Amino acid sequence: MVDITHKTHTLRIATAQALVLVSKPETIEAIENRKVPKGDVFEMAKAAGLLAVKKTPDLLPDCHPLPIEYTGINYRIEGLTIVIEMTVKTIYKTGVEVEAMHGASVVALTMYDMLKPIDKGVEIQRIRLLEKKGGKSDRKSTPA
Amino acid sequence: MVDITHKTHTLRIATAQALVLVSKPETIEAIENRKVPKGDVFEMAKAAGLLAVKKTPDLLPDCHPLPIEYTGINYRIEGLTIVIEMTVKTIYKTGVEVEAMHGASVVALTMYDMLKPIDKGVEIQRIRLLEKKGGKSDRKSTPA
Amino acid sequence: MVDITHKTHTLRIATAQALVLVSKPETIEAIENRKVPKGDVFEMAKAAGLLAVKKTPDLLPDCHPLPIEYTGINYRIEGLTIVIEMTVKTIYKTGVEVEAMHGASVVALTMYDMLKPIDKGVEIQRIRLLEKKGGKSDRKSTPA
Amino acid sequence: MVDITHKTHTLRIATAQALVLVSKPETIEAIENRKVPKGDVFEMAKAAGLLAVKKTPDLLPDCHPLPIEYTGINYRIEGLTIVIEMTVKTIYKTGVEVEAMHGASVVALTMYDMLKPIDKGVEIQRIRLLEKKGGKSDRKSTPA
Amino acid sequence: MVDITHKTHTLRIATAQALVLVSKPETIEAIENRKVPKGDVFEMAKAAGLLAVKKTPDLLPDCHPLPIEYTGINYRIEGLTIVIEMTVKTIYKTGVEVEAMHGASVVALTMYDMLKPIDKGVEIQRIRLLEKKGGKSDRKSTPA
Amino acid sequence: MVDITHKTHTLRIATAQALVLVSKPETIEAIENRKVPKGDVFEMAKAAGLLAVKKTPDLLPDCHPLPIEYTGINYRIEGLTIVIEMTVKTIYKTGVEVEAMHGASVVALTMYDMLKPIDKGVEIQRIRLLEKKGGKSDRKSTPA
Repeated sequence: MVDITHKTHTLRIATAQALVLVSKPETIEAIENRKVPKGDVFEMAKAAGLLAVKKTPDLLPDCHPLPIEYTGINYRIEGLTIVIEMTVKTIYKTGVEVEAMHGASVVALTMYDMLKPIDKGVEIQRIRLLEKKGGKSDRKSTPA
Repeated sequence: MVDITHKTHTLRIATAQALVLVSKPETIEAIENRKVPKGDVFEMAKAAGLLAVKKTPDLLPDCHPLPIEYTGINYRIEGLTIVIEMTVKTIYKTGVEVEAMHGASVVALTMYDMLKPIDKGVEIQRIRLLEKKGGKSDRKSTPA
Repeated sequence: MVDITHKTHTLRIATAQALVLVSKPETIEAIENRKVPKGDVFEMAKAAGLLAVKKTPDLLPDCHPLPIEYTGINYRIEGLTIVIEMTVKTIYKTGVEVEAMHGASVVALTMYDMLKPIDKGVEIQRIRLLEKKGGKSDRKSTPA
Repeated sequence: MVDITHKTHTLRIATAQALVLVSKPETIEAIENRKVPKGDVFEMAKAAGLLAVKKTPDLLPDCHPLPIEYTGINYRIEGLTIVIEMTVKTIYKTGVEVEAMHGASVVALTMYDMLKPIDKGVEIQRIRLLEKKGGKSDRKSTPA
Repeated sequence: MVDITHKTHTLRIATAQALVLVSKPETIEAIENRKVPKGDVFEMAKAAGLLAVKKTPDLLPDCHPLPIEYTGINYRIEGLTIVIEMTVKTIYKTGVEVEAMHGASVVALTMYDMLKPIDKGVEIQRIRLLEKKGGKSDRKSTPA
Repeated sequence: MVDITHKTHTLRIATAQALVLVSKPETIEAIENRKVPKGDVFEMAKAAGLLAVKKTPDLLPDCHPLPIEYTGINYRIEGLTIVIEMTVKTIYKTGVEVEAMHGASVVALTMYDMLKPIDKGVEIQRIRLLEKKGGKSDRKSTPA
């Protein structure tokens, strides 16, 4: 694990994106109308994602535990794709990009698990960092 | 959570695949020659993945806890892509596909986290079920 | 921890109840109309409760880990009281009453945490076993 | 999860109370004389409670992880009621009332689980915030 | 992780031993008279050990999750040495020796942590399997 | 749990040592040549140890959660003994010696678990604090 004892506290923000692709319009309708038998997909996946962001250092060996000071989730539907954007903030010595990516991945997996009974063709298509601020290297991904 | 009290124990096998795309050949070389500063990427990500498969029901609300009786990880490098295949087996009343997908996702995230200091352009590209056996619906994905 | 190696597997069902008392009708309205700023209280508390049932043996020293085969949550509003009923099933050598009570308590605490910004007077009023089946001593609580 | 990046660190103290009601004087005697078969109820429940306070953000989705800097448990017996008071302190941007309430609830549940073999009528009767200091709204509950 | 899908369920018992060496008789007296400021060392370490046995597969990558059906702790004081013996039982396809050793190590570490304020010279001296039954290779260690 | 609200943040460093004794030279060779069937023992035990350091407050009741800012593992082979040295750093109000000892113990247990199929005589022989800096009492163990 990288030594960060000498680093200073700054505001760090990261946004990660995960894409969940379903196989038919009926799946999207069931989500929007809250008709998925396991429950409200957006709300339950949000709860799972909020918890997962905090568990990142329990799962990734080199990841520093840090004070998560904000987690927000944004959903957007584009055709058969659900766009998940997970933003995490901290004031600490190291960034939160892996936390944001881990949170986004668990939101996507929770959706997969909840939708499995009604759609056998769900796939997680890409998990990537959209933007990070603070630290040495600010970065904004080009649209894709 | 779906009621599975009435179901019978059968052998269930699932294989999930995650793809990690790096941005330059030097990253692949560093992995293969064990020169990544944080450690041996394949071995450490394997340890993280084995643990993560077992933690799946801690992260996904509707996922049944079950006796994981085998977890295996296979790596393959194709150009700038690392192909991760995670196989999980159980003899139980419900399948292990979500466990395999969760394991594969944590292997991919561990790689991302370990490679971040030497490659800012790593992305996780697709997490999907490759194959499952046992239960009502055997399935094999078409190559893609 | 009690030795259960000699016991036989039977279907066990337990239902626990927790009561959350809010201090004003506006709180109930905000829940019902999904206007609580932290999210949909019933859905998010359900996700937290499903996860908590599975974590019971991580928190209670003498509690046996066991295969949770069903978890269901039922909500009912009676005046200013939210009635939470959590049912858990397993086919195992020991019962699930503590799991049901732990799940109900975490649902209640999640509600408390989500409602805190809009209602300072929320209280958790009673967590008790309503009913259990299987094992030596079936039991049904008298109404109260 | 509420954004607390802009808030300042202050000393926060919270005390929560849980009441465990047993059904007969013999149960109280067994606790006081350390004759409960599963072990010393007060000491083991204390260990479980200390651990539980630290796990609060693992269970409650919106709860910020924070540096727990003190946890203390106080027990008092009043007739057939065991009064549990759990105090938590931190110097941080947000309070510890939910941590205190979660800790108190796990102390109560551990007692329930340990007493179950000798008393089938144990109930958890009320979990509430007694007092909090620091932050915008100091508060002290009226006695009840 | 070794594939155990083809194996049969048998009763497995393992006992592990850990030795904690303190540096002065006053420490032993404080433990026996329950005068250690952090609490009753034997009882709190037992609670921590019972929980730790169940968490073994969360910490050791290749360890199969399995139904812990009994955990017992035995303490013995020999001069300045505290002898901890942790016995674990399961009826499953693989043994519980690592679970017993992990449990014994956490009991020892909890003692170390609780005794630290009153004795700076505590050491953990040997963690080993004493005996195991069931499976291919029964074994009993020679006294040492 | 000791009240540390009044203490100040200083750099704290602790190094703990665990010794793993194998029973034959072939075991050492298998480790060095990466021929142990379960994987690369040094790398996988390192991953498990990095995660375990962070989980210390989840296992030890009185242990304060704190920001782990560095974890490093060093291995050395001396005859049939594997010497594990685990160093942990934080800038916080309390030390990291228990974290270092817990990490070292989990590294040792992971080795035990990975080596078990090829060597039935592995033992963990001593876990102790080697050195600590920061706080009231700097200390360096005498060689042993």
